[in-house]
Amino acid sequence: MTSHRIPLTELESGTPFESRHIGPDAAAQAKMLAQVGYGSLDELTAAAVPDVIKSTERLALPEARSEAEVLAELRSLAERNQVQHSMIGLGYHGTFTPPVILRNVMENPAWYTAYTPYQPEISQGRLEALLNFQTVVADLTGLPTSGASLLDEPTAAAEAMALSRRVGKAGKRGSTVFLVDAECLPQTVAVLRTRAEPTGVEVVVADLGEGIPDEVADRGVFGVLLQYPGVSGAVRDQRAVIERAHELDAVVTVAADLLALTLLASPGDLGADIAVGSSQRFGVPMGFGGPHAGYMAVRDAFARSLPGRLVGVSRDADGEQAYRLALQTREQHIRREKATSNICTAQVLLAVMAGMYATYHGPEGLAAIARRTHRYAALLAAGLRDGGVQVVHGAFFDTVTARVPGRAAEVVERASLAGVDLRLTDADHVGIACDELTGRAHLSAVWRAFGVLGDDATSDFAALDAATGDALPEALLRTDEYLTHPVFHEHRSETGMLRYLRRLADRDYALDRGMIPLGSCTMKLNATTEMEPVTWPEFGALHPFAPAEQAEGYLTLIRELEERLAEVTGYDRVSLQPNAGSQGELAGLLAVRAYHRANGHEQRTVCLIPSSAHGTNAASAVMAGMKVVVVKTSDNGDVDVADLHAKIEQHGDELAVLMVTYPSTHGVFEEHISDVCAAVHEAGGQVYVDGANLNALLGVAKPGRFGADVSHLNLHKTFCIPHGGGGPGVGPIGVREHLAPYLPNHPLQPAAGPETGIGPVSGAPWGSAGILPISWAYVRLMGAEGLRRATQVAVLSANYVAKRLEPHYPVLYTGPNGLVAHECIIDVRPLTKQTGVSIDDVAKRLIDYGFHAPTMSFPVAGTLMIEPTESEDLAELDRFCEAMIAIRAEIDKVGTGEWDAQDNPLRNAPHTAAMLAGEWQQAYGREEAVFPAGVKASDKYWPPVRRIDGAFGDRNLVCSCPPVAEYEAG
Amino acid sequence: MTSHRIPLTELESGTPFESRHIGPDAAAQAKMLAQVGYGSLDELTAAAVPDVIKSTERLALPEARSEAEVLAELRSLAERNQVQHSMIGLGYHGTFTPPVILRNVMENPAWYTAYTPYQPEISQGRLEALLNFQTVVADLTGLPTSGASLLDEPTAAAEAMALSRRVGKAGKRGSTVFLVDAECLPQTVAVLRTRAEPTGVEVVVADLGEGIPDEVADRGVFGVLLQYPGVSGAVRDQRAVIERAHELDAVVTVAADLLALTLLASPGDLGADIAVGSSQRFGVPMGFGGPHAGYMAVRDAFARSLPGRLVGVSRDADGEQAYRLALQTREQHIRREKATSNICTAQVLLAVMAGMYATYHGPEGLAAIARRTHRYAALLAAGLRDGGVQVVHGAFFDTVTARVPGRAAEVVERASLAGVDLRLTDADHVGIACDELTGRAHLSAVWRAFGVLGDDATSDFAALDAATGDALPEALLRTDEYLTHPVFHEHRSETGMLRYLRRLADRDYALDRGMIPLGSCTMKLNATTEMEPVTWPEFGALHPFAPAEQAEGYLTLIRELEERLAEVTGYDRVSLQPNAGSQGELAGLLAVRAYHRANGHEQRTVCLIPSSAHGTNAASAVMAGMKVVVVKTSDNGDVDVADLHAKIEQHGDELAVLMVTYPSTHGVFEEHISDVCAAVHEAGGQVYVDGANLNALLGVAKPGRFGADVSHLNLHKTFCIPHGGGGPGVGPIGVREHLAPYLPNHPLQPAAGPETGIGPVSGAPWGSAGILPISWAYVRLMGAEGLRRATQVAVLSANYVAKRLEPHYPVLYTGPNGLVAHECIIDVRPLTKQTGVSIDDVAKRLIDYGFHAPTMSFPVAGTLMIEPTESEDLAELDRFCEAMIAIRAEIDKVGTGEWDAQDNPLRNAPHTAAMLAGEWQQAYGREEAVFPAGVKASDKYWPPVRRIDGAFGDRNLVCSCPPVAEYEAG
Repeated sequence: MTSHRIPLTELESGTPFESRHIGPDAAAQAKMLAQVGYGSLDELTAAAVPDVIKSTERLALPEARSEAEVLAELRSLAERNQVQHSMIGLGYHGTFTPPVILRNVMENPAWYTAYTPYQPEISQGRLEALLNFQTVVADLTGLPTSGASLLDEPTAAAEAMALSRRVGKAGKRGSTVFLVDAECLPQTVAVLRTRAEPTGVEVVVADLGEGIPDEVADRGVFGVLLQYPGVSGAVRDQRAVIERAHELDAVVTVAADLLALTLLASPGDLGADIAVGSSQRFGVPMGFGGPHAGYMAVRDAFARSLPGRLVGVSRDADGEQAYRLALQTREQHIRREKATSNICTAQVLLAVMAGMYATYHGPEGLAAIARRTHRYAALLAAGLRDGGVQVVHGAFFDTVTARVPGRAAEVVERASLAGVDLRLTDADHVGIACDELTGRAHLSAVWRAFGVLGDDATSDFAALDAATGDALPEALLRTDEYLTHPVFHEHRSETGMLRYLRRLADRDYALDRGMIPLGSCTMKLNATTEMEPVTWPEFGALHPFAPAEQAEGYLTLIRELEERLAEVTGYDRVSLQPNAGSQGELAGLLAVRAYHRANGHEQRTVCLIPSSAHGTNAASAVMAGMKVVVVKTSDNGDVDVADLHAKIEQHGDELAVLMVTYPSTHGVFEEHISDVCAAVHEAGGQVYVDGANLNALLGVAKPGRFGADVSHLNLHKTFCIPHGGGGPGVGPIGVREHLAPYLPNHPLQPAAGPETGIGPVSGAPWGSAGILPISWAYVRLMGAEGLRRATQVAVLSANYVAKRLEPHYPVLYTGPNGLVAHECIIDVRPLTKQTGVSIDDVAKRLIDYGFHAPTMSFPVAGTLMIEPTESEDLAELDRFCEAMIAIRAEIDKVGTGEWDAQDNPLRNAPHTAAMLAGEWQQAYGREEAVFPAGVKASDKYWPPVRRIDGAFGDRNLVCSCPPVAEYEAG
Repeated sequence: MTSHRIPLTELESGTPFESRHIGPDAAAQAKMLAQVGYGSLDELTAAAVPDVIKSTERLALPEARSEAEVLAELRSLAERNQVQHSMIGLGYHGTFTPPVILRNVMENPAWYTAYTPYQPEISQGRLEALLNFQTVVADLTGLPTSGASLLDEPTAAAEAMALSRRVGKAGKRGSTVFLVDAECLPQTVAVLRTRAEPTGVEVVVADLGEGIPDEVADRGVFGVLLQYPGVSGAVRDQRAVIERAHELDAVVTVAADLLALTLLASPGDLGADIAVGSSQRFGVPMGFGGPHAGYMAVRDAFARSLPGRLVGVSRDADGEQAYRLALQTREQHIRREKATSNICTAQVLLAVMAGMYATYHGPEGLAAIARRTHRYAALLAAGLRDGGVQVVHGAFFDTVTARVPGRAAEVVERASLAGVDLRLTDADHVGIACDELTGRAHLSAVWRAFGVLGDDATSDFAALDAATGDALPEALLRTDEYLTHPVFHEHRSETGMLRYLRRLADRDYALDRGMIPLGSCTMKLNATTEMEPVTWPEFGALHPFAPAEQAEGYLTLIRELEERLAEVTGYDRVSLQPNAGSQGELAGLLAVRAYHRANGHEQRTVCLIPSSAHGTNAASAVMAGMKVVVVKTSDNGDVDVADLHAKIEQHGDELAVLMVTYPSTHGVFEEHISDVCAAVHEAGGQVYVDGANLNALLGVAKPGRFGADVSHLNLHKTFCIPHGGGGPGVGPIGVREHLAPYLPNHPLQPAAGPETGIGPVSGAPWGSAGILPISWAYVRLMGAEGLRRATQVAVLSANYVAKRLEPHYPVLYTGPNGLVAHECIIDVRPLTKQTGVSIDDVAKRLIDYGFHAPTMSFPVAGTLMIEPTESEDLAELDRFCEAMIAIRAEIDKVGTGEWDAQDNPLRNAPHTAAMLAGEWQQAYGREEAVFPAGVKASDKYWPPVRRIDGAFGDRNLVCSCPPVAEYEAG
């Protein structure tokens, strides 16, 4: 026998997940370190990260576990969630995700690892899918222009409130009252209140069933929000209220249920100006609250004021029809403190799913689901009435409110024991919402819970059905057609849908093809182990307001994730509620605001923001009722300390907060950050560190320890939630103890935040809870050492790329020892000046080389910001560097005149396969165009369109599926 | 309120799954019926299907259920399976499928819906993956040529037995003894016995631990089978036995465990001629028995005799390296009754997974898993010994046999209660196998079960580890390198592996891109709902010999599926054991053989087979010990009835069976099938109906009722199991009552078949149980009406295609009323004669149009057999017809001389993107080459290589990953 050689513990460590997550292995790291000039990761870290911010102690996290172990842990958490048939309603409903969509969209990396479609030429698939979504929303709401989704229904309502104030006559006149019907969802009302107060809007809630009360009308109203059907289930004809509101010059928003709209007259038809809502019940799992795609549609006049993303139709260099994001100059990252919304992202993955659900079912299929849902509700009501229970409303769609004086809690309890959750409206009322998954057994269970059906009795459905009419008001029946576009009629077989999804995915470039080196966006690995639990029913099928005892798995996971995020950031408390980075910013600033006010410093409203900051910072500050004051950036990209001191001085006791990104938006570890924090604190201000660049800090430094009071994190950047093609995101905030009383909370879930909190910023208590298992799994898989090493390799990779590109492009900003942090900015401006080759030309040419472009012109116009992340292996980093170097050589050919200034591969990039086959018009060769050095013909990614003319589309705005004739002409 | 309009029952039927499975909707069906000339599906069926075979009664199946309901039913079946930690061993082991491989191969339609790579130009991805698998097997076994996988380990051993007899000197001399070591797996021994007896081979089992017994040596031995490590766990040095066997001119096969081979000297190194085994533990779930990829590797001299599929390297028209199936002329479909094996398929999907597992882990990773597994076994043994339990062997890899006289059952029972299953070897011995999933807790549980660790005591692993040496014999330690090819070192990060998998998938054409109209292969929808349960751990993680009480869900599902398959085929009993169609054929013929012998008719050995039959039929008959007599086919493609009668007459009481496909291999419902059956029965023979074409019969006619005695079905054709790129398949047999006693059974599982059965034909009791949920779900989703309608639409689609193509290509065979069944044959021979355009040219040109070619030259050379299936919608059928019509016009251009006879788009097809970019050499245009009518540039599928030269590869056989230098040269 052989003598024992390897100790068990060493064998047991196996292949740690860390070595799957981090691209470069030990040998590659050594090679990269040599290029950068350091002997080890720790030496590099020591040189790159200023001592003042460095943490010395190891993160207090549980030991890293293997993928098998973490999946087993997640399974046991999942088993502690109990999936019942939820009839709670309140804007969340059971739905059946067609398996072909579940597997080929939600579980498909080609969809979920894609980035926001800023490079439209390589995003045509998801842009088409989003256009379908927009068409669904526009058609069903009867309002012509829909955006590509918002974060959820309550925030969509808040955006509608802001829009109403901005564009309506009464708002322009200075009216500050937003009138909300008492039939609106409670979480919507609560989010509206959170958002209204800092901006000086008063939310007035009133029962509008009998019209707008005169005393409110007399005060003036800039906007009205109605719910359709109402939260009680009631379906009311709101034409008169809308008309009256219009007489008052108010803008009318209807929060509408898309499924109900397949049978009911559309908001547009009723006269509404804006429609908002959720598309969750179109095939998106409830996920204990999210993520789902909220929506907003508006009448023509408001199209150019719509907040959030909007996909439009334009044309490419060949005049072919092509899609891209429209009207981008409206967006917060451009308009900064003049922005009217801080929304950066959409819920793309979920909007794609909802759009595909409608595409797969088509108008008749959707209507059939709606009719069945309604029919069950009608039978449910009839059965209750037959048993002597009072049903409050005669007209309803899917939700019935039953009156059982003093017995409501008992009924809810009995139903729950039978596996059906109802809504305990109050001591006397129970709400019961039917959905796509409701069946006869559920109705019987409800009847038994109400005591109108004996435990052993069975219901005579046939008789009840024959005796019961529908409960939809005749006057509100929908008569117009919707979803008439062929796309909603062509993909009805599973085979057809599967191929449609594949065809769209194949047009796009996502992380499953190659690197997406986007500065500030951290496109790292979204590991399958992290993703798997998201589509387990035990995580997917939970209603956000399910009783806590049914959500023990979720609540444990949420608590652990909060604690672990607090540990890694050095904060005392974390709230997971904000469902996007922008929401986190707002929540954090509102906490600061509340803190100052609690201390009697209401005058502290000045928010200092460096000029290099992401525009969203400024937009969020304005939404939080603050006044933005810009601090200069010095030549080396750092905050201009002198100017900062001057501004602090100048604003004195009006200083509320400094909002700064760290490492800076220039990708640099600024050395004086602690001094900056101290100066702000000394002046009575708070420090907000934007966590967008946390991927450079984890395990190395903690913002909560080096001087910040509050940060938002981007779980969709540093913590592996995939970008989903432009959402979902999760933007939790961490705060130090003194801000903890001002974290978000939730009216329907006391456990979600402190009683003294700022109110909810998202519709659900824990925001997009359904995707939190991803980040939980990442932390569990990596452990303290793994997270630190990931940061170290991210920094190494950025410095490696910087070093390799430096001879060819100037690297703009560096910090200590000439090192960058986790990203680097290369300057193309001098080359543009010399040769006319633009930053756009370089970005599009990268497509020909098989890459997604880095971040363009942020934070400095004419530059590219490259963030390689730790997940790219050395071969891919080298392939990218070599492409960039080859492009530099191409630029030189233009510079020397060897290539024509207009007719060259850069200017004409990207090149399509269609160009190759046609008559070749270019001065250079086909091979040079499409197979530049290193591109293998057999594995080439082909962009489906040539360079897209954005301006044309903005001038000729088309935001729903274009008529087929146009396709044919194209 | 509106009055009630739609009855509940109608609303509840919703969108039935049937309408997702069947491509053409009602409107499309009407259009197609009009083209074919019938008013309804029933009219068409009445006209197409002969009255004598038609069933009149509705299938007695449970009502169709929705996808949501069927998933819920499957969930509850899954919950009745209990996943324990299995240490049973016996050739099946726990393994962790890397999630990136699970999601992106096993759950990815781009992989699982692909067909066998007969069209290599559009199969380069899976061919590369299979070449990786072959390289893994060749490297680890130390034998240079490995096939692309066999069905399982026992059948691989049986193939090795046949090969040994055929190629070895002793076999050629007429020796009939195959010597099997007593350490071989019991199921392997049983399968060998099933396969040996009909072919006159005697299986002698003996303990070869002390060498080959003289009395056996004296009788002469053509082959020897050894197990390495042995079933008891023992690792013995078999060099001496192998040497002795070679002295006897016997061929030596070693059944080896691939994981053990990462640490132990390879079979090739020990002197073996052949190695066989299973690759299951390389990341493939146990699945209650399968499917997994068996393997065989051989020394150079046997390379061209290897049974099954073999992937080799060749070159394309540009001289670029390209992969394709090698040496196809060896295969059973070519060699028919001269074939040496009936194997048609491989376990491609599973071989791809196993190969990727090795690629992802690399040699060090695999060895680390093996070392950990071994270390646990060593500690387990030490702990038992320390506690006074006798461990039988001193040298072992992962399996320990413990001797506990009289206590074995009690120990096994106690372990099982603690969640660990052990092997009850006999009353005195317990077998315990460690695997990749074993951990300390499992060892402690085992020790407690043996009573060597107190219930509350904890083990001191550190002390035990320090005190315990490895248990691998020094003389057998592996010293040579393996997996040195770069592919096993390049894809170690998850990001890297994900992209590699995507890149390979993108080279291939599968059902997720478009139609694969393969006659006789029924490439229909593999619905996601059917596929989902396959990767649930409750179905995936069960050991095939798990106690029955842990497999209640499986056993229920199996029983129901057997009953339902019996109902739809009209048979009395069904066995699900055969894990491929070929295995089903063999099992069915063995049942016929056993029946005749039981009746004293040993002389009945003649098997009549029509000349048009699939070659496998003849190969299977030979393997079942029968003499094949060919019956002529008449001009219209039917069996020549006169010749049949003559042959029956001629062979008199030697007639065993007529083997016939129905509808015929010509795609025709032969009208005289009942007469044919009657004639055979009258002569004392049995009728075997090959179920390959069952897709034309389901719900319309039952073979068991119109005269057949036995059939095999192809669940991977008619019952929606995906082809997986060339496997898995499932080939159950149905028999009438008199043959039921002769169904397969299993030595380790009495419930798997009758005591009087023919023995096992597959290694596992229910074959590839892990994928049976697919077929179960299909039947449950469709119900009686749905299955019938699927058949009707399949027939309609075939007739529609035939009618549309008839003006352009002659349709060869038709049945009643000029109708075909579910497929049609179009004749290209006249066109070839006139123009020189070959069937190959047409097939490859279809790639340029974005299609997979139909079946080529079967059953008639120079023709194409098209089976559209019911799942293709009308748009896709039309797209295909239009491509074929356009190709016909192209052929005419060659015919008229408008196009050069050599230099034309047909001859040069398929065209690659690389051709486009280079200098254009062709007489026709680029556009014409790659974007013929109807092909959209933006969604084009690009074949990665040009037409492949198969003969070159066969002359220069390379069957493992070629050196990188060759890539570079390529």
